[in-house]
Amino acid sequence: MRCEVVAVGTELLLGQIVDTNSTWIGEQLALAGIDCLRHTVVGDNPERIRLALEESLSRSDAVIVTGGLGPTQDDITRDVIAEVMNVEMIQDPDLVELITAKFRGRGRVMPENNLRQADLPQGATTMKEMPGTAPGLICPISGKVIYAVPGVPLEMKQMIEGTVIPDLVSRSDEVAVIRSRVLRTWGQSESGLAEMLADEIKRLDNNQGVTLAFLASGMEGLKVRITAKASTELEAEGALNGEESRVRSIIGPLVFGIDGENMEAVVLKELIAQGLTLATAESMTGGLIASRLTDVPGSSKAFLGSVVSYANTVKHEILNVAEGPVVSEQAVLAMANGVCELLGADVSVAVTGVAGPEPQEGNQPGLVWIGTSVDGELKATKVQFPYDRTMARQLTAITALDILRRRLLERAEKN
Amino acid sequence: MRCEVVAVGTELLLGQIVDTNSTWIGEQLALAGIDCLRHTVVGDNPERIRLALEESLSRSDAVIVTGGLGPTQDDITRDVIAEVMNVEMIQDPDLVELITAKFRGRGRVMPENNLRQADLPQGATTMKEMPGTAPGLICPISGKVIYAVPGVPLEMKQMIEGTVIPDLVSRSDEVAVIRSRVLRTWGQSESGLAEMLADEIKRLDNNQGVTLAFLASGMEGLKVRITAKASTELEAEGALNGEESRVRSIIGPLVFGIDGENMEAVVLKELIAQGLTLATAESMTGGLIASRLTDVPGSSKAFLGSVVSYANTVKHEILNVAEGPVVSEQAVLAMANGVCELLGADVSVAVTGVAGPEPQEGNQPGLVWIGTSVDGELKATKVQFPYDRTMARQLTAITALDILRRRLLERAEKN
Repeated sequence: MRCEVVAVGTELLLGQIVDTNSTWIGEQLALAGIDCLRHTVVGDNPERIRLALEESLSRSDAVIVTGGLGPTQDDITRDVIAEVMNVEMIQDPDLVELITAKFRGRGRVMPENNLRQADLPQGATTMKEMPGTAPGLICPISGKVIYAVPGVPLEMKQMIEGTVIPDLVSRSDEVAVIRSRVLRTWGQSESGLAEMLADEIKRLDNNQGVTLAFLASGMEGLKVRITAKASTELEAEGALNGEESRVRSIIGPLVFGIDGENMEAVVLKELIAQGLTLATAESMTGGLIASRLTDVPGSSKAFLGSVVSYANTVKHEILNVAEGPVVSEQAVLAMANGVCELLGADVSVAVTGVAGPEPQEGNQPGLVWIGTSVDGELKATKVQFPYDRTMARQLTAITALDILRRRLLERAEKN
Repeated sequence: MRCEVVAVGTELLLGQIVDTNSTWIGEQLALAGIDCLRHTVVGDNPERIRLALEESLSRSDAVIVTGGLGPTQDDITRDVIAEVMNVEMIQDPDLVELITAKFRGRGRVMPENNLRQADLPQGATTMKEMPGTAPGLICPISGKVIYAVPGVPLEMKQMIEGTVIPDLVSRSDEVAVIRSRVLRTWGQSESGLAEMLADEIKRLDNNQGVTLAFLASGMEGLKVRITAKASTELEAEGALNGEESRVRSIIGPLVFGIDGENMEAVVLKELIAQGLTLATAESMTGGLIASRLTDVPGSSKAFLGSVVSYANTVKHEILNVAEGPVVSEQAVLAMANGVCELLGADVSVAVTGVAGPEPQEGNQPGLVWIGTSVDGELKATKVQFPYDRTMARQLTAITALDILRRRLLERAEKN
């Protein structure tokens, strides 16, 4: 069973709204084990909608079209489907009744326009879900099918879940279930990960059921996605668990979280598990680490606060950093220590570096010292990031949290 | 000039990430007056990518393809374009040098894989922007053109703005010049702005040259976009200037910036102009305001630092907030005053509120007190935001900065 999604709407092409409908439908199809080959977006133009539908039908067994089912003159999806099916439009008396009743129920007068929504291509049937005034349509066409659902996400979702997916599954010969899991990593490049996992990927090539893929997520690290296809959910989960163990045995500590877990949530979870409190002392990141931590619900269980010591006077006077270079090992260690003492924290992260655009104390933009204090033991690391102010700050924040994460894991192992 | 966008990536089809690239590119094309007929999403499959490119080329003059330019085996866009162009892939020695140097600059060893990114279809040229290791490609093909840009948004955007749009405009037969300017506003809803500007929009309906449009930008306020079409650049700029004055005379102080200017950049500019230094005291925003300020190059000229007083002990001990409720007028005024004294700042912003998910001191999540200190004069404002942790924090940060902006403008008028 091969499927495609066609989204209709000039506002999507013009970038006025993001096409989250196709994304959501794609996810539901994947979860149901139905292959989705293509998403297409076209404007409210009858000729271009017709071409898109015909092309999709020529490649696939089923097409889901969203949008263009409203009551106005530029809602033309119904008419175009009739053309593709080569049938007439017929007014459905039950729909006339239903739509009229919906307006009456809301105490509103029905604009004449709205009766356009009671017109159906001959041979089409309507879906049982109808939260708005636009019916969803099931349109059979030479052994294949077009499903038409409204572009309003709430209406679309009810129809896809309630009718389209079950109908597709019942038409499908395949009984396969597809499940996936994402391992989130930090500290290695995409090609570096690919090299480490090359043998495993080769091994999987002989095994149709499980695949690995890499997804770059900008400044949030690289994701390794495991996808398993099996005949039952239990079997798919088992395959995911087995493959996760194999991948972890190869890239081990690079994995920091699973699926939606970000670095800050993982660090907070570990702090709470070990009963530790955290403070940050930030110069170059200017509060970014604190801000990311406090975006996590429940962060107040471990996070006490931060001193953003952007000006050097703040470093010297509040954090007791000695006079001298402020982008240095001594400075970052003093910051890590000073903020623990000032806020009474068990653990701290400190950052001082050159945000740019100008060099500072002979250091190039992107040079950063990261310090950590765990149970009073201080450590410092020097890193050079490629220069781009926003990117260097983000990379520094997540790298600093990753250094703390690894120290916390070591601490847990020792105790 | 007709254009299409093709996004490559199985993760897009599976709904694991939303295709915001096509949306953004669609918006840039619309702003430049270039028709965009279709967006297509296909997976990492050579045959399907080839078909999509060939179909798009058959309908349009130019195709922008995003994604699949990375260094791994499943990044195949380059190779498929060579197939569509019917040419060989050739390694470009300058690119080998450039990519190798990028890794050297980061102090990292280059995985062998990465040299795949130095292979080009014969006849293709590279774009001047190259923030990552993937070059953007301009691929001429029988009088038409394919532009290939990476899927990483940061890299894609630089290439589209710097190379693709100017190149498309220069290929276009249209002699009209289209220019637009965005007025950024804060403090009014979309329908509120539309009401205020209704007469002006009606007036413009009779004037083909200038249009107004509203763009919601999530948590960064509403944008009023003025677009002018004229026969020369000078004429278009003149029309923009005239319309900007008229809009400002209607919505005046709601406008905080122009085009790419964000709230923090505007506040810093005003502080520097008035020779003032700034500190922040943040509880509920947890460093977000400081982080946004320090993301602006040159922020060190005015911004001294911040105390993120997330735990109440930090509020009491470091900022001298009296015992008692910490989400209150007294607490926020004490924070604004305390941080000015501690860091020696002329001006401060302070925030204390309920980030949620739990209510606190009888207040619902989303309730926030914002305090400011200007020349020692303290003011406080209470705001209730709709509850969503991340959204409430972002709305608070920009609202706090807007309150400070308005106080700074008042101060400038007085002096």
